Amino acid sequence: MAGLVESAIRGSIRALLERDESEARRAQEGKSRINQLQIENDAKATTLLALQQPVARDLRFITAGIKINNDLERMGNIASNIARSAMSVARSPTHSPSVDISLLAKMVEEMVSRSLQSFVERDEQQARAVVASDEAVGELKNSIYQELVSEAEAAPGDAAVTIEHILIAHNLERIADHATNIAEDVLFFVKGIDVRHQR
Amino acid sequence: MAGLVESAIRGSIRALLERDESEARRAQEGKSRINQLQIENDAKATTLLALQQPVARDLRFITAGIKINNDLERMGNIASNIARSAMSVARSPTHSPSVDISLLAKMVEEMVSRSLQSFVERDEQQARAVVASDEAVGELKNSIYQELVSEAEAAPGDAAVTIEHILIAHNLERIADHATNIAEDVLFFVKGIDVRHQR
Repeated sequence: MAGLVESAIRGSIRALLERDESEARRAQEGKSRINQLQIENDAKATTLLALQQPVARDLRFITAGIKINNDLERMGNIASNIARSAMSVARSPTHSPSVDISLLAKMVEEMVSRSLQSFVERDEQQARAVVASDEAVGELKNSIYQELVSEAEAAPGDAAVTIEHILIAHNLERIADHATNIAEDVLFFVKGIDVRHQR
Repeated sequence: MAGLVESAIRGSIRALLERDESEARRAQEGKSRINQLQIENDAKATTLLALQQPVARDLRFITAGIKINNDLERMGNIASNIARSAMSVARSPTHSPSVDISLLAKMVEEMVSRSLQSFVERDEQQARAVVASDEAVGELKNSIYQELVSEAEAAPGDAAVTIEHILIAHNLERIADHATNIAEDVLFFVKGIDVRHQR
């Protein structure tokens, strides 16, 4: 499921940067399988809780899994929205704005990949690195947002494509938020500590 | 927690419509208490799972509660983002665009309130009504989006405020998505059926 989500995110961004409609369509193809896995994973978690009645770290593994399962489905959904934006950008004759969406996307993809690795490897340091990088993503997104608003004011004929890029930046930040949630859940699972809302 | 979230949503929209900065600030005040309740509720749920080892409907109540707790925190966070947009709109000398954000907000507030009621009253029909109304919200949001893009093209001097309204419409739709998640969790809790991803 994590692999499908990562590849949907990467594909949607590639489709945007290369203005490639068929790549965007491919990026949406994983969505139904991701949705199905969400349902299956939840059913498995509930069965494990009922039949095994786990405690301590085993219990925290299952509750973290339930939340991560949810975050992954949301990330898949957002990737599919980005792919839809990429299609509309690809179809438009307007040039894409010159903001650095690819840098933002790279930072977000890195956060996603590290958050998932931290879960698989039960790695506290990786999880903490993800939580720490959320702020830099927020700052880059804000500066991209300001630039895009100025572009919309300066070139109203291109406003539709400019605004599509604002939504994409916004959606990338939401994916980063989900990666942060996953990292926080990993810290709770591995260390038994709740680090949410401390910044 | 649900009460705080509902009042944050209502307050943020009122602040927007009345261009009232201090109302927007008040709408953000509930956020830290909502965050704290999220942490407390998760801790209680984990303790209940470990000590009571519930099964069947009791177990589904706890797992639904863990998810709803998460959705409520997200909704509180989004309401706070809307309040921030409302502040920036209130500070701007530009007129607000003429789109019907208040109708969209009303539909979304209604979904939120019904989803929470369906949980408290274990009411399958209310939960189904929430799931059914998600599509109408999506359609209204899309038509508002199109109108706002046209306004940004036609009046580039007002683009900053117009784009702020696009983000608000987008955020309202996200709140509706969370209300739908809650209703789906209620159906799983009450009926033991998973209705997600069937549309």
